[in-house]
Amino acid sequence: MKKVVIVGAGFGGLFAARTLANKPVEVLLIDRNNYHTFTPLLYQVATCALDPSEIAYPVRNIFRKDKNVRFLLGEVTAVNPTKQTITIGNLGLEREEPYDYLILAAGSEPSYFGNDDFRAFSLDMRTLSDAVDLRNHILRLFERAAWTEDERMCEALTTIVVVGGGPTGLETAGAIYELYNHVLNAEYTHSDLKTRVILAEMQPHLLAPYPEKLRQAALEQLESLGVEVITGQPVVEVAKAYIKLGDGTKIPTFTLVWAAGVKGASIAELLDAEVRWDGRVPITPTLLLPNHKNIYAIGDMAYLEDSDGQPYPMLIPVAQQQGILAAKNILAEMAGRPSQTFSYHDRGMMATIGRRRAVVWMYNRIPMKGYLAWVAWLALHLMTLLGFRNRVSVFVNWVWNYFTYDRSVRIILEKATPPGE
Amino acid sequence: MKKVVIVGAGFGGLFAARTLANKPVEVLLIDRNNYHTFTPLLYQVATCALDPSEIAYPVRNIFRKDKNVRFLLGEVTAVNPTKQTITIGNLGLEREEPYDYLILAAGSEPSYFGNDDFRAFSLDMRTLSDAVDLRNHILRLFERAAWTEDERMCEALTTIVVVGGGPTGLETAGAIYELYNHVLNAEYTHSDLKTRVILAEMQPHLLAPYPEKLRQAALEQLESLGVEVITGQPVVEVAKAYIKLGDGTKIPTFTLVWAAGVKGASIAELLDAEVRWDGRVPITPTLLLPNHKNIYAIGDMAYLEDSDGQPYPMLIPVAQQQGILAAKNILAEMAGRPSQTFSYHDRGMMATIGRRRAVVWMYNRIPMKGYLAWVAWLALHLMTLLGFRNRVSVFVNWVWNYFTYDRSVRIILEKATPPGE
Repeated sequence: MKKVVIVGAGFGGLFAARTLANKPVEVLLIDRNNYHTFTPLLYQVATCALDPSEIAYPVRNIFRKDKNVRFLLGEVTAVNPTKQTITIGNLGLEREEPYDYLILAAGSEPSYFGNDDFRAFSLDMRTLSDAVDLRNHILRLFERAAWTEDERMCEALTTIVVVGGGPTGLETAGAIYELYNHVLNAEYTHSDLKTRVILAEMQPHLLAPYPEKLRQAALEQLESLGVEVITGQPVVEVAKAYIKLGDGTKIPTFTLVWAAGVKGASIAELLDAEVRWDGRVPITPTLLLPNHKNIYAIGDMAYLEDSDGQPYPMLIPVAQQQGILAAKNILAEMAGRPSQTFSYHDRGMMATIGRRRAVVWMYNRIPMKGYLAWVAWLALHLMTLLGFRNRVSVFVNWVWNYFTYDRSVRIILEKATPPGE
Repeated sequence: MKKVVIVGAGFGGLFAARTLANKPVEVLLIDRNNYHTFTPLLYQVATCALDPSEIAYPVRNIFRKDKNVRFLLGEVTAVNPTKQTITIGNLGLEREEPYDYLILAAGSEPSYFGNDDFRAFSLDMRTLSDAVDLRNHILRLFERAAWTEDERMCEALTTIVVVGGGPTGLETAGAIYELYNHVLNAEYTHSDLKTRVILAEMQPHLLAPYPEKLRQAALEQLESLGVEVITGQPVVEVAKAYIKLGDGTKIPTFTLVWAAGVKGASIAELLDAEVRWDGRVPITPTLLLPNHKNIYAIGDMAYLEDSDGQPYPMLIPVAQQQGILAAKNILAEMAGRPSQTFSYHDRGMMATIGRRRAVVWMYNRIPMKGYLAWVAWLALHLMTLLGFRNRVSVFVNWVWNYFTYDRSVRIILEKATPPGE
């Protein structure tokens, strides 16, 4: 039986593996985590609203009934297209696996646009560990603010700057503002903490791909909430206790959340493939790497343009649909049928901004904002979350948090000796 | 207003602070964590049944309506009984707080009975971090077992030894056995994993303080489940890949859970107080440190004998009742009333062994075992869990896990680079 190796259990890899489940192929799925992460809700883990396990689903559990899908925990350390093997490492052990077809779906990682020194003082929002780190960081700084009598230090400890005006940035800023003002402020009554949440975007607009009307709605929603929005200013300097913007503004803060940009995962460098400036590898319309007839690349790490010459965005639905197509193309080739080319079925975009506020651009034609958009956002995210128990659990938490203004997961859970701060 | 400083937000400190809430005193509660841990359910976090936040409750939330109770996150680094001050440290900062009364409720820590080299290869079950570490460890070893073709290595990776025949040891062994055999085995179908769970106790009996009939019932319940029970054998050697018992038996394993013993927390060493061999400080019947008239010590770290000369056990109800009495004695002294001496209202003991099995010794008079005892255990633990949301959430998870045989929190959540293994 032919063997398909899939690298990455994100949305692209997962949908590819699901499409191949119970088909006449042997599937090996590899990921560095033993779970699939529902990344759209990471910011809710970071802001104490959800438990990590509610948005993470064990990969083995997903495929427990699919006997032809095997899972291995590890990281890819080498690919040999001539021998058709892939090498996986896990805590010092290495293992070589042969493949007939390879699907690379390794996703993306944060990009600092050349300012790699920003990384040392930035908190990312890409993985479940990132989200838990941010939660611990915010709560720890509040506890520290309760210690200090120095008013300016105190303000810096409770000021957060979110960089990036895309959905992740908006959602994180909104949720942090509500955490500060509905929950934490009520519990630090012995200290008079002033909290500031700042959203900084380099471009003149938030939500660049959205129509002007929705961009404006998002800005108004954020400002009505209390978030300070700064547009048209890049971050030019990042230090432990402050950041500096392009116009010279210095903001004292210990918390910089980097939601500004991503690049393709570095796995492509293991191959002889061309890698673009943004870390993505160009692929053919049938999702193959050029010059390879059995290596597919999909999702955030892959670069493909539509018929108008516009690149497909690094979004979950693109990864999902490419995952399904790569799997189908493999099955087609095995059956001697022709491969299909990729076309994106775009259902639109959405972003939520705190309680009862959101912007939705349905099918990129119908704009929605406010309460109705927020309900649509809730419904869609609940429906697409993996696992019945997770869905129930998230729903119950949302209802609970909505009516009580509570955030239940407010625990600093880390090693007794946190990394030197 | 007089100021009471309470060290530790475990069961002793928490009940003391609750008794002083809204009384005419100023209360400062200090803990190294920002949450109170419901320790009886730690083993369920370690075995993937519950989320950490379900058994942890933020201290600030508990006292958010009690204006006279303040909380600070930190560790006590010095006590000065002459000046009546206590020094607290938090990530390099130090802060001195004056007190009129001090309640020490710092709890206990694992004891290796002189074999401190065991610590390097032991997993404890004392804190929420311990429980998450054990969960990560078990899941990681299973993933590793799925890699290896070496049968003996594989068996060592999926063998777990729990040391200690008290309730924690029994509950942990039972829960791990069920995790292995109901959940993990079904998901590692591509590898033929043989799992062993061994419970080792130095003394000839499990559950030493229980009557013979219940000891026997516990043994039978464990063995009917599938746990191998070894009694009368101390652990004499611990290494990374094996442990050795007193009779020379060598058990290849990478997982040793230490539930064998505890000693009083080392905070007592900061004082001029006498410290016993087991780390506990002797206290007077009114719960004061001898030679001090305003320093109380309670719970696991304190040593007191009842009227028959029997020491009070290191159990949660003792800590709770001592916490309440210490607080009442402070209020009494402030009002010029006499202090009360401690007497323990003992409601008995219980331990659960997997699904539908438990032993209960109600009021130390009525023995119960099996299904009825298990229901009593469930009800008591649900009732005493802190926070309405936690109670609902744990209940829902229990029902879910019971009917589906699922363990929902099966994620390896740790830093990308785990400590070298």
